[in-house]
Amino acid sequence: MKYDKITPETLTLVTSIVGKENVLTETELLQPYSHDEVTDPAYHHLPEVVVFPESTEQVAKLVKLANEKHFPIVPRGAGTGLACGAVPIYGGMVLSLEKMDKIIEINADSMYAIVEPGLRTDELQKAVTSYDLFYAGDPCSGDSCFIGGNIATNAGGNKAVKYGTTRHQVYEIEVVSPLGEILHLGARLNKMTTGYCLDQLVMGSEGTLGIITRATVKLLPKPKHLVDLLAVFPDIESAIGIVNKVIKAGITPTCVEFMDNITIKSVERYLHETLPDSENGNYVIIQVEGTNEDDLDEKMVTLDELCTENGASSVLVADSAKIWQARKAFAEAVRAESLIVCKEDIVVPVDREPVIIDNILVLAQKYDLITRIASHAGDGNIHLNILKNEALSHDQWEEKIAAFQRELYTEVYKLGGKLSGEHGIGYKRKALMAEFTDKAELEVMRAIKKAMDPNLILNPGKIIDVLE
Amino acid sequence: MKYDKITPETLTLVTSIVGKENVLTETELLQPYSHDEVTDPAYHHLPEVVVFPESTEQVAKLVKLANEKHFPIVPRGAGTGLACGAVPIYGGMVLSLEKMDKIIEINADSMYAIVEPGLRTDELQKAVTSYDLFYAGDPCSGDSCFIGGNIATNAGGNKAVKYGTTRHQVYEIEVVSPLGEILHLGARLNKMTTGYCLDQLVMGSEGTLGIITRATVKLLPKPKHLVDLLAVFPDIESAIGIVNKVIKAGITPTCVEFMDNITIKSVERYLHETLPDSENGNYVIIQVEGTNEDDLDEKMVTLDELCTENGASSVLVADSAKIWQARKAFAEAVRAESLIVCKEDIVVPVDREPVIIDNILVLAQKYDLITRIASHAGDGNIHLNILKNEALSHDQWEEKIAAFQRELYTEVYKLGGKLSGEHGIGYKRKALMAEFTDKAELEVMRAIKKAMDPNLILNPGKIIDVLE
Repeated sequence: MKYDKITPETLTLVTSIVGKENVLTETELLQPYSHDEVTDPAYHHLPEVVVFPESTEQVAKLVKLANEKHFPIVPRGAGTGLACGAVPIYGGMVLSLEKMDKIIEINADSMYAIVEPGLRTDELQKAVTSYDLFYAGDPCSGDSCFIGGNIATNAGGNKAVKYGTTRHQVYEIEVVSPLGEILHLGARLNKMTTGYCLDQLVMGSEGTLGIITRATVKLLPKPKHLVDLLAVFPDIESAIGIVNKVIKAGITPTCVEFMDNITIKSVERYLHETLPDSENGNYVIIQVEGTNEDDLDEKMVTLDELCTENGASSVLVADSAKIWQARKAFAEAVRAESLIVCKEDIVVPVDREPVIIDNILVLAQKYDLITRIASHAGDGNIHLNILKNEALSHDQWEEKIAAFQRELYTEVYKLGGKLSGEHGIGYKRKALMAEFTDKAELEVMRAIKKAMDPNLILNPGKIIDVLE
Repeated sequence: MKYDKITPETLTLVTSIVGKENVLTETELLQPYSHDEVTDPAYHHLPEVVVFPESTEQVAKLVKLANEKHFPIVPRGAGTGLACGAVPIYGGMVLSLEKMDKIIEINADSMYAIVEPGLRTDELQKAVTSYDLFYAGDPCSGDSCFIGGNIATNAGGNKAVKYGTTRHQVYEIEVVSPLGEILHLGARLNKMTTGYCLDQLVMGSEGTLGIITRATVKLLPKPKHLVDLLAVFPDIESAIGIVNKVIKAGITPTCVEFMDNITIKSVERYLHETLPDSENGNYVIIQVEGTNEDDLDEKMVTLDELCTENGASSVLVADSAKIWQARKAFAEAVRAESLIVCKEDIVVPVDREPVIIDNILVLAQKYDLITRIASHAGDGNIHLNILKNEALSHDQWEEKIAAFQRELYTEVYKLGGKLSGEHGIGYKRKALMAEFTDKAELEVMRAIKKAMDPNLILNPGKIIDVLE
């Protein structure tokens, strides 16, 4: 891809749209916008300019300008991504939504909220709690990520087993199209068959098919009876083996999370805390809701029996704050161990999870890898983190990882799985995407991208290469 | 649109693909494929040929041939549509999926089924019941419609309040693209962010973006405790007013259905049955599930209180078979009264339903219309049927309906509603679609259609006109 540079003349036009106070051009100030949470500098790229629009109209004008002057625009939320989706690999403009951060409306009666994309996810969660409602989107990075980014990547998180991923929490999105048109996609309706389902197409497209500038999201009645159980298993196999049994018991847990022993110890070191049974245990955290106390009790008894039968050494009612702090510290704990980490976001059918975990363990041994595993096990979504062995050169490391990934994803796809459960493809997984996706399907994606973004302005070079 | 006629030479090629026994060309035999459930002959069009492929490969070959010889293909399920979506308005080929009607697999352990598109919906429902599972798609025409058609139109039905519409029941679809490529879209996964969400784009596109040749659908544990309540209200306003109160009570009913008094009487005549309180009553049917008997009892008490407070003259546990027979007989009962019926499929946010019902009643009076109303009230989806007054000429009737629709949908869109909740746009609502949809959104739909179907082969002239 060849783009035009942002000239001083173009910059004047940009400034006239958003105001001087909303434009950054000094290299030092651009630095934080050159990367997301991927720490490997090989994946960092400086933008030419960063802008902070304050309205949908400003976003639309910027996109029209980009089409006219032929520079790329990379929309950016909080920069908590793990696939380099918000990295401006062709330079151009990073369009940060951080100043569009308001809650426009909370309607407790009709159970929805209208929010701007730069709103931090946990701020929405907190804002609705006094209405006895909750927002079911719950990524582990909820205290830093933005709703807009959650929608753009179809973020998953901890409640997806019962409530679905971010795309299931959204009624309607306001979107600036790649041509700079303002669209309202979806509607605050329980059903509709009125033309193509463009809202679902744009959600999860990682900023390549539109910039989300506003969203109407669903709120739900806060569950009255809820418990977190911690089941500790002596080995990984029996821990993972319990997941499908829990799902099949007809209990519909809110979530089922898994952490392997080595990861638990890593988190203990990071938090300077002692976690229960951490000597040999592998954790399965099960959150379950009840319609009343009896219902909750019945479910707890069932879960206790299932886990014990499957070899759990203990099943206890967890200290919710503590256990979730531990689970959510996973990413930071790993980062504290190594700055160069390969983070896989494998997803397979839940019933195939034991097979793929077994595969991972075998391959990790074969390739002599340092691994940490935590997973949204109830979704078949395994976060496998591989820490760079310091003895390896960067090239050796890249080569080893590439060989490992090829073997791993061949198995994943055989089992009906996919490359990414919730982190997205972005820039980092693009080569694997091209390798493992059916050619005819890639062609349809390309055709749609070209049709919606004929000048290839929005977040080029992500998910798929359009020109091959 | 100009297409080439299907010549004898082309027909020979068609026959070589599907076999002589799977090709119809005699006018008399083509007749049943010239229309769907819309009885007005103004909406009927004869195809040049009807074919019955028996495999995905045959479908792909036919679509490739159509691209080569430039004739249109209209995919067809059971022909139970209400928007002329399966009517071959440009002639060409009707591709009926009725011979691809098998259940390929039922996996009770992992709770999914793999089915062909020509499978009747109730056959799937019946087939899984012995596994203590159910399939949540439940259109009123379940005893005649096909799963493939349900997916193509994103059919709603009676369980959508709790379980969503057909698009929420589907893990994966096998699709023949408009260029004749075989695609596998979606996956049997709880989450994924691996490229564009093409499955949701194709579902609900009414055969314009692909022909569904196979689907993997979700199965769910059959609810153990379930009841149908019938609440009878003396007037329409108090009946409709209850709906949002039920939704807000946090009960999550499986469905909330509404029938007005005049419709109840129409159904009584059709079925030769007497229904409870039919003299003056307006019905609200509420189906609710409980996790245990206490939970179900609690919900029934809450519902009884809510309905009584809102003016219900009686709230009783319904004879499920009888009440659902009555509700599902709505369409046939109306047809028995008149062959020329305008069927609206209005959808609004549930909390705006009383406003739009009030609007409908006022407009019906203004335009002197004969109406029958039954609605999936829990979804804000109102089936308003208008019977042609025999005193009107066809032109007068069309004119009156057009004026009424313009006023009605202006209000519907002001309230955040849409043209169709579950029947689709097809051919019948295309003019209204162009009138009430935002121009920029229509342009995106057109761009996608042209990108995926450059020769405009698949079901042309439906939903949107691509060339304007």
